[in-house]
Amino acid sequence: MSVHVRLITPITTAGFRRKEDLAALETAGLRISLSATRTGPGSIESAYETTFSEPGTVARIIEAEREGVDAVVVDCMADPALQAARECVSIPVIGPSQTAMHLAAMLGHTFTVLTVLTRLRPQFENLAAIYGLRGKLAAVRAVDIPVLDLESDIAATQARLVAVAEKSIVEDGAHAVVFGCTGLLGCAEAVRKGLLERGYDIPVIDPIPSALRMAALLVEGGLSHSKLTWPAPPAKPMAGYADILAPLPTAAE
Amino acid sequence: MSVHVRLITPITTAGFRRKEDLAALETAGLRISLSATRTGPGSIESAYETTFSEPGTVARIIEAEREGVDAVVVDCMADPALQAARECVSIPVIGPSQTAMHLAAMLGHTFTVLTVLTRLRPQFENLAAIYGLRGKLAAVRAVDIPVLDLESDIAATQARLVAVAEKSIVEDGAHAVVFGCTGLLGCAEAVRKGLLERGYDIPVIDPIPSALRMAALLVEGGLSHSKLTWPAPPAKPMAGYADILAPLPTAAE
Amino acid sequence: MSVHVRLITPITTAGFRRKEDLAALETAGLRISLSATRTGPGSIESAYETTFSEPGTVARIIEAEREGVDAVVVDCMADPALQAARECVSIPVIGPSQTAMHLAAMLGHTFTVLTVLTRLRPQFENLAAIYGLRGKLAAVRAVDIPVLDLESDIAATQARLVAVAEKSIVEDGAHAVVFGCTGLLGCAEAVRKGLLERGYDIPVIDPIPSALRMAALLVEGGLSHSKLTWPAPPAKPMAGYADILAPLPTAAE
Amino acid sequence: MSVHVRLITPITTAGFRRKEDLAALETAGLRISLSATRTGPGSIESAYETTFSEPGTVARIIEAEREGVDAVVVDCMADPALQAARECVSIPVIGPSQTAMHLAAMLGHTFTVLTVLTRLRPQFENLAAIYGLRGKLAAVRAVDIPVLDLESDIAATQARLVAVAEKSIVEDGAHAVVFGCTGLLGCAEAVRKGLLERGYDIPVIDPIPSALRMAALLVEGGLSHSKLTWPAPPAKPMAGYADILAPLPTAAE
Amino acid sequence: MSVHVRLITPITTAGFRRKEDLAALETAGLRISLSATRTGPGSIESAYETTFSEPGTVARIIEAEREGVDAVVVDCMADPALQAARECVSIPVIGPSQTAMHLAAMLGHTFTVLTVLTRLRPQFENLAAIYGLRGKLAAVRAVDIPVLDLESDIAATQARLVAVAEKSIVEDGAHAVVFGCTGLLGCAEAVRKGLLERGYDIPVIDPIPSALRMAALLVEGGLSHSKLTWPAPPAKPMAGYADILAPLPTAAE
Amino acid sequence: MSVHVRLITPITTAGFRRKEDLAALETAGLRISLSATRTGPGSIESAYETTFSEPGTVARIIEAEREGVDAVVVDCMADPALQAARECVSIPVIGPSQTAMHLAAMLGHTFTVLTVLTRLRPQFENLAAIYGLRGKLAAVRAVDIPVLDLESDIAATQARLVAVAEKSIVEDGAHAVVFGCTGLLGCAEAVRKGLLERGYDIPVIDPIPSALRMAALLVEGGLSHSKLTWPAPPAKPMAGYADILAPLPTAAE
Repeated sequence: MSVHVRLITPITTAGFRRKEDLAALETAGLRISLSATRTGPGSIESAYETTFSEPGTVARIIEAEREGVDAVVVDCMADPALQAARECVSIPVIGPSQTAMHLAAMLGHTFTVLTVLTRLRPQFENLAAIYGLRGKLAAVRAVDIPVLDLESDIAATQARLVAVAEKSIVEDGAHAVVFGCTGLLGCAEAVRKGLLERGYDIPVIDPIPSALRMAALLVEGGLSHSKLTWPAPPAKPMAGYADILAPLPTAAE
Repeated sequence: MSVHVRLITPITTAGFRRKEDLAALETAGLRISLSATRTGPGSIESAYETTFSEPGTVARIIEAEREGVDAVVVDCMADPALQAARECVSIPVIGPSQTAMHLAAMLGHTFTVLTVLTRLRPQFENLAAIYGLRGKLAAVRAVDIPVLDLESDIAATQARLVAVAEKSIVEDGAHAVVFGCTGLLGCAEAVRKGLLERGYDIPVIDPIPSALRMAALLVEGGLSHSKLTWPAPPAKPMAGYADILAPLPTAAE
Repeated sequence: MSVHVRLITPITTAGFRRKEDLAALETAGLRISLSATRTGPGSIESAYETTFSEPGTVARIIEAEREGVDAVVVDCMADPALQAARECVSIPVIGPSQTAMHLAAMLGHTFTVLTVLTRLRPQFENLAAIYGLRGKLAAVRAVDIPVLDLESDIAATQARLVAVAEKSIVEDGAHAVVFGCTGLLGCAEAVRKGLLERGYDIPVIDPIPSALRMAALLVEGGLSHSKLTWPAPPAKPMAGYADILAPLPTAAE
Repeated sequence: MSVHVRLITPITTAGFRRKEDLAALETAGLRISLSATRTGPGSIESAYETTFSEPGTVARIIEAEREGVDAVVVDCMADPALQAARECVSIPVIGPSQTAMHLAAMLGHTFTVLTVLTRLRPQFENLAAIYGLRGKLAAVRAVDIPVLDLESDIAATQARLVAVAEKSIVEDGAHAVVFGCTGLLGCAEAVRKGLLERGYDIPVIDPIPSALRMAALLVEGGLSHSKLTWPAPPAKPMAGYADILAPLPTAAE
Repeated sequence: MSVHVRLITPITTAGFRRKEDLAALETAGLRISLSATRTGPGSIESAYETTFSEPGTVARIIEAEREGVDAVVVDCMADPALQAARECVSIPVIGPSQTAMHLAAMLGHTFTVLTVLTRLRPQFENLAAIYGLRGKLAAVRAVDIPVLDLESDIAATQARLVAVAEKSIVEDGAHAVVFGCTGLLGCAEAVRKGLLERGYDIPVIDPIPSALRMAALLVEGGLSHSKLTWPAPPAKPMAGYADILAPLPTAAE
Repeated sequence: MSVHVRLITPITTAGFRRKEDLAALETAGLRISLSATRTGPGSIESAYETTFSEPGTVARIIEAEREGVDAVVVDCMADPALQAARECVSIPVIGPSQTAMHLAAMLGHTFTVLTVLTRLRPQFENLAAIYGLRGKLAAVRAVDIPVLDLESDIAATQARLVAVAEKSIVEDGAHAVVFGCTGLLGCAEAVRKGLLERGYDIPVIDPIPSALRMAALLVEGGLSHSKLTWPAPPAKPMAGYADILAPLPTAAE
């Protein structure tokens, strides 16, 4: 059985997410396709941008279900569109923030979200509160580098991640680390190695690989989100969203 | 000093909110204007509809600040656009759900949200969690009448509200009641009277009047939301929202 | 409609609160009168003093209702007499601590209480617990100046408030500030300005003006505290309080 | 070593508490004396009465320390004067509500407070919140009999206690019971027997005996309350309380 | 890549878990082997039995790591030996209770644990508290059938599970269900079907399949538990456990 | 009435606990006997050691009840065997960690556990969560000295305890201190004196004396743990524990 999971990018920056980033994650049992919203911001660093990323992302998620995809993962740690899309579809819709926080809570006594900007602290604390994990969140710490600059000097980004993680271990009592931005995809191994060198053997959770595998786990187990929590929305016209909700001219992948 | 507060309706049903509904709330110190999104759903009964109501509502809130309005209130108990709009403007942006829950927590040991549909329980419990009031929320109870049908038999709606409120007092230990839908505007007096007749002297909070007055209170006190919680979003292009974000041809009121 | 709110001072220091302190808060819609207990401590800096301030304060609150006042505010951040007085009267009884904490929770992700003495931390944490807001209280920080010395060098007091507020923003992650002593009345503008100069644009809540306006808001909305939470006390003799409960020879104002 | 504990009754009903009620609790190691406030209500069934019971009770507690008593217990489940008196004295001041709730939390997964009147629910939930035990309090249930009528038909009172306790076991999942009124002194054995007959082998905590023994436990261990939580109050005049604070003409016992 | 996960049964009832029960869960990527403690109780229905199941289970987990297994799952919803074993080994040790509760919290607003005996409520509430999920646990409900009798009339067991689940949906507001006994392995599909027939489309989580897949997910992601939370125990003699800790004569499978 | 309490040591280090350590605690009303497990670790500094200490400790507790002892105290701050043993016996089983934390919560606004090793933080936070006291636990701080080295330089150990306690008062806001290792028996007076010299008048709780007295308090009050929380375990064979469960050849004392 091969599970088809689609990673849906909620931002409009061309080339932010490429097929080759994910190739190593594909297995006999997991096939990954990509899609992205055509509308909304170039990156998500605020509630304003989260809000405007959501309608187009919902459209891509509905489209994925229509195309027979088995599950979707939203490619942003704000988990945009998660609540709305789960109402619209029956296939699992995975937020990497939700998944990564739950994994971290399973693997450590407490965890810290290592994110890009200090301003995102309320977002992560609010998500943790809604996900029922506020008591496990030791801290939200930022490297203070904007999303689209993370890769400009990847070694510096990783060094900064290690330094901030160590600070959180020492000062906040963190026992696990979750990356608070999907733009950090691929940095977990380096950060884990850096922490091991400093004597800290803790899980460093890269949310996108975890979320893709969680999507497959749910599909294999015949599980999806509760329709008591996310019942289908009532059928009504939606003014002004014809373009945003329109299917993409050529199917994603 | 007269405070100008704008009530911004996040749904597209024409005539849902009329100037005359609010006339009685205006005083020497409080002037109320109206505006409504042109885009989004006809009513909000799901997370999906909340999500699609938000971009147009943010646009109307930005417009209100630009026009010199002193504060805005969003006309829906899902508090749509609250997080995003507070980043975009400096004037107070009031969510009636947040205001009503805080007032209820001040006036009673616990409170119940009396809303239209059972499916909204997660929404209110999540909002209460984010607003820091989960411990005061005794229950979310529903009359199970859709938003746009509430006024078709107003006496029946009010009788149902009284019955469900009494049930929540007896079974959930509720000591105050918050209406969980702004479509119930104007029913508080009848519900309070009905409960008094049954021996329950408790506050029945009508969110829109409370929120409008709270907006004035904040303006008079020189208060607005924290820019550490809601810093201005970074300046970036926003693809696909030119129409939704465009100013209304003629100014609201 | 003009709302008559009485500010009731629970301490016996003559001249602590003067009519002219509040003149600027009066509007066409808000008339403010004053009253003070004749019994109890000269200032409140301990649970012992809170306890002895309460009987005389309850007497003044009952008297206010009898005189036709629309609502009362207790002039102390320990919210003395709040629980007892709400049982005795039907008009709204407002605790500035309760009101200010709820406003702060509405306007910021978290808030800090900036008070006079470190010893008051348990008091504020206990009040926050009872008011349902413990999760929003980032910290209680003190300037360590006794209540009656706050005005002896007002510039020094304000500078200290700014410094401690900044410390709490940086170390506790505070996003809003509540003054934890009504003796700081009038300092909010200076403290807010000082914080803005350091780059922090956050609400600084002066509890007495906020509480007076909240009293008016409730009266205008026909709201008061729940009689399920605060039912009238049983009628019984009260030994030894004839003098303390006696009406003032001349009505307050 | 014999520990001298004084039980201080905060109400003015003559004969409410008699030496013979407590004789059976005295041992070689525990000597019990009695004292009572001369001022305040005849019984405590409201926050108003709690408030007016406190000044006279504080006076009796200060007096007890001055007379060389080793520890005091306040004879009411509202724990009146606890916060204030702990500031005024160094000897242990025990609230039976605090002690009984902590014992119940040690002996059962959850506990219910069985009290006299429904109106006391907020009081017990607030005390539990302050004492840090809100999560262990399954429910507050009332027999709805006023304090001074509890003994008029003691068999009926006990039968009602058993019935309400069983209801709380079944409906609230209670695993232990605390009497929520010190007027129920002496009923624990009968209630425990009644529950055993119905198949429930759970602790039934009689607060006054437990609190007297807890006082002795603390004295024997050289323990008292923290002076960081309850520092001595500042020395200041206290207007209007000369009579209430005056020593009793003849020493208590 | 094929991940080798060992399911370790902490009870001594021969034939409780057979290879064929799990055959359907094996895939190209997941190989499952079995092992069981030789010491301890025949089934786990109490804290006493949990305690005595643990030493032998720890021995089997250490053995599994020594044999090159990639991860282990403990086959009991009390998650016996989880804390101790995570200290002893570096490979992931999965508790099905922890995994199933986290999955349920991801897939529903709240969840109920459907277990065998009412007496297990404290166990599940305590585990939820430690795992950080107490706020998501709507209830613990029991079918009141002992573990080893569950399969004697499987249709009756399943019917009872559906009935109790429905009761919890209606009365506790549950939005997802977790089986609270690994003896219910294989019943999820029937229970989910039964609930769908009654109109409830919610996830029904079968803990063992979920835990086995979670083990694979962690191994594929290079993740394991934090060594800050579970550091290796100090090296010391362990008196009296030579037999219990001895390797099995022939390797498990 | 003399209460016979047995202190049961869950470790196998000969001479760790001697009769003369406890002589000063015996009174006319309290007789203390000793017993120790013959199986398990030499000291408890990990979850692994806790787990292996438990079966032998349960055996000693069952034996104590059989011998007519009135109550037992387990001599370790991990409270090993507490859950299991309470199911097996009817006499009170006291965990010193549970008792000391509840006493600390009664005597201070918050408390800190001062323990031997940093690695024990999750253990104490988990116990506090289960005991319902997580909100009162300010911090877990360690002196970083192994259990069996604590007495090698007792003055150094005490000085370190004072220093770490002061740090926790200043940085964590601790208002009381609980020793987090029963190996610190007898140090409370010196630590309290050291803190008083630095100006901190707070309770320093020595868990074993407190627990022994708590055991007597419960016996005198006819109280024990709830059989709804800890019902007797089902009767079943227990494979492989014949030696560990066997009675000691000569009765303990």
